[in-house]
Amino acid sequence: MSKIKTVAVVGGTHGNEFSGIYLLRKWQQSAALARDSFSVETVFANPKAHNDNKRYVDHDLNRQFSLADLANNELASYEQSRAKAINQQIGPKGDAKVDFIIDLHNTTSNMGPSLILLQSDRFNRQLGAYVKMHMPNAVIVLEDHTSVEQHHFLSSIAPQGVIVEIGPQPQSVIRQDVLDWMDEMTKHILDFVHLYNTDELLPLIPSYEAFRYHETLSLPLDEQGQRIGMVHRSVQDNDFEPLHSGDPIFTLFDGSEVFWKGDYEAFPHFINEAAYYDNNLAMSLAKKVQISTLD
Amino acid sequence: MSKIKTVAVVGGTHGNEFSGIYLLRKWQQSAALARDSFSVETVFANPKAHNDNKRYVDHDLNRQFSLADLANNELASYEQSRAKAINQQIGPKGDAKVDFIIDLHNTTSNMGPSLILLQSDRFNRQLGAYVKMHMPNAVIVLEDHTSVEQHHFLSSIAPQGVIVEIGPQPQSVIRQDVLDWMDEMTKHILDFVHLYNTDELLPLIPSYEAFRYHETLSLPLDEQGQRIGMVHRSVQDNDFEPLHSGDPIFTLFDGSEVFWKGDYEAFPHFINEAAYYDNNLAMSLAKKVQISTLD
Repeated sequence: MSKIKTVAVVGGTHGNEFSGIYLLRKWQQSAALARDSFSVETVFANPKAHNDNKRYVDHDLNRQFSLADLANNELASYEQSRAKAINQQIGPKGDAKVDFIIDLHNTTSNMGPSLILLQSDRFNRQLGAYVKMHMPNAVIVLEDHTSVEQHHFLSSIAPQGVIVEIGPQPQSVIRQDVLDWMDEMTKHILDFVHLYNTDELLPLIPSYEAFRYHETLSLPLDEQGQRIGMVHRSVQDNDFEPLHSGDPIFTLFDGSEVFWKGDYEAFPHFINEAAYYDNNLAMSLAKKVQISTLD
Repeated sequence: MSKIKTVAVVGGTHGNEFSGIYLLRKWQQSAALARDSFSVETVFANPKAHNDNKRYVDHDLNRQFSLADLANNELASYEQSRAKAINQQIGPKGDAKVDFIIDLHNTTSNMGPSLILLQSDRFNRQLGAYVKMHMPNAVIVLEDHTSVEQHHFLSSIAPQGVIVEIGPQPQSVIRQDVLDWMDEMTKHILDFVHLYNTDELLPLIPSYEAFRYHETLSLPLDEQGQRIGMVHRSVQDNDFEPLHSGDPIFTLFDGSEVFWKGDYEAFPHFINEAAYYDNNLAMSLAKKVQISTLD
C-alpha cells in the first residue's frame, strides 16, 4: 500500500452524536490534528441534522455511500444529496482525493472506546495493534464482512477508512470521559499514519484480540410489528462480554424470558443502541478473533 | 386532607421517555394498578411526540400547566392545546376530577429511582417515607419552591401530584432496570394511597433525608451563546453526591477547569440531562434536608 497523503476527519455524520462535532470545533482552534507527512481536512457531515438535534433529517447519512447508491440520481433526499456532495468533496469513491477517513461516532451502548475497521489488510491490522498498545481499553471491531465498494458507510469513500465509535453517551449529550477517549483515539490513529508513512513504526504486538461482526438481533415483536420485550437486564451494558446458548437475552413485557439459541460464543455490542430502535434492532453479535500483525 | 377517590397515572408526557409509555401498555393488560379504595385511569399524554420519537413537537408539554397558561387561549401550539385537552380530561386545575396524579418520567442523568414531590404537606412527607421504607434506593426530591397553582407541571393539575423520575436511561431506549424501578415505585405509591385512604398505614420512619431544589446551573457559554465547556468528569454521574465551594464543576473545551463558588453544600442532580441542552442547562442543585413524618 502506498503512503497516505490526505486524511479527512469527519464529525457530525449523525447530528445528535455530539463528541465529534465538538472535537472538530476544538481542533480547528489548534494544530492538534497536524502531522508532517500528510494533510488533514475536517468535514462536518450533517450540520442540518445537528441543527435539528436529530440523527438525520430524512435518511441515515451513514447508509448512503454504496457505489450503487452514490450513482443513483433518483436518491435525492437531504442525506442522499448530502452523501453525493461529500462524495464530490473528498471522493469520489473508487478514485478519491482523500486516502484515509476517520469518521467519529457515539453510541448509547456501553462499548467504551471502540475502533471499527472495515478491512483486515496489513494496514488495518497494524493500526488496530498500535491503537491497542497505546490505549489498552480500546476495543477493535472488524466489519470486513463486505467489500469496501459494497459498504454504505461514509468512511468507505476512501481506499482506507475507519469508524471511531465511543460510548456510552446519550444522544445530544457531551460526556467528558467519552470526549476525551475520542480525542485520544483519533490522535493515536493519526500518529500511526504518520509513523506508517515515514517507516518509523516500532515493533508491534504480534497479535491481539478483536471482535468480528457476525449478525444482528432484532427485538421481540408481535405479529403487528410492535415490540413485546426488551434487552434482558443481564445483557444490558455488557457489550463485548460472552453470550452462550441458553443465556437469557430478552425479557418480555409479560415477565417471561427469552434465551439465546446460538451455536457459537457470541460477543454482543451496540446493545440497546437508541438509534437502532427505528429498525427494532436489539444488538449486534460478533465472534472473537485473534489478529496477527506478523503476516 | 380528604380521601383520594381518583388517581391518574400518566406516561409519555415526553415522547422519548419510553419507560412510562411501555408500562402503561403493560398495565392495561392486567389489574396491576387497581386498588379497592380508589379508581385509576391512565393517560398517554403526548402520543404525537412519541410517534415522532421526540420529547415534544412544538413546546415542552410538562411546562404548560400553570393556571395562567391554561387560561390563555392564545397559547395554541400542539402541546399548548394538548395541555388544555388533558386539563379538561382530568382537571380542570383548581377543581379537578382527579385527586392525585402520578406522572412517569425518565432522565438521562444517573438519578436512580427518584420521586419528586411538589408539596411538603403531611401527605407528601408520609408518601416519601413510605416509598423510602419499601424501596431503600429511592431518592426523594422536593420541588416545593413554588405553589401548586404556579407550578407548570402536568402533575400540578390535581390537588396532589408527584413525578416519578427514573434514570439513567438514554432517550428512546427501554432499560429493564429502569423499567423495573418505575414499575416498583408506582406500585408503592398506589399502595400508600390505599393505606392512607383506609387508615391502615403502619408507623412510618420518624424522619428521612431528602433533597430540596435550590437552583439551576447553566453550561459555560461564550458571548454568542455557544457552549464552550461541559460538565466536569468528576461531577458526571454523581447525582446527589455533595459539591462544595472550590470543587471542579465544568471543563472548558480549551482544557481549563471551572470551579464552583457556592456558599452551601449542594447536591447536583439532573446532571447533563440531554433534554436540558435546548436551554443550555447543566444541572440542578439541591440542599439536603431532613423530613419529619411526626408533625
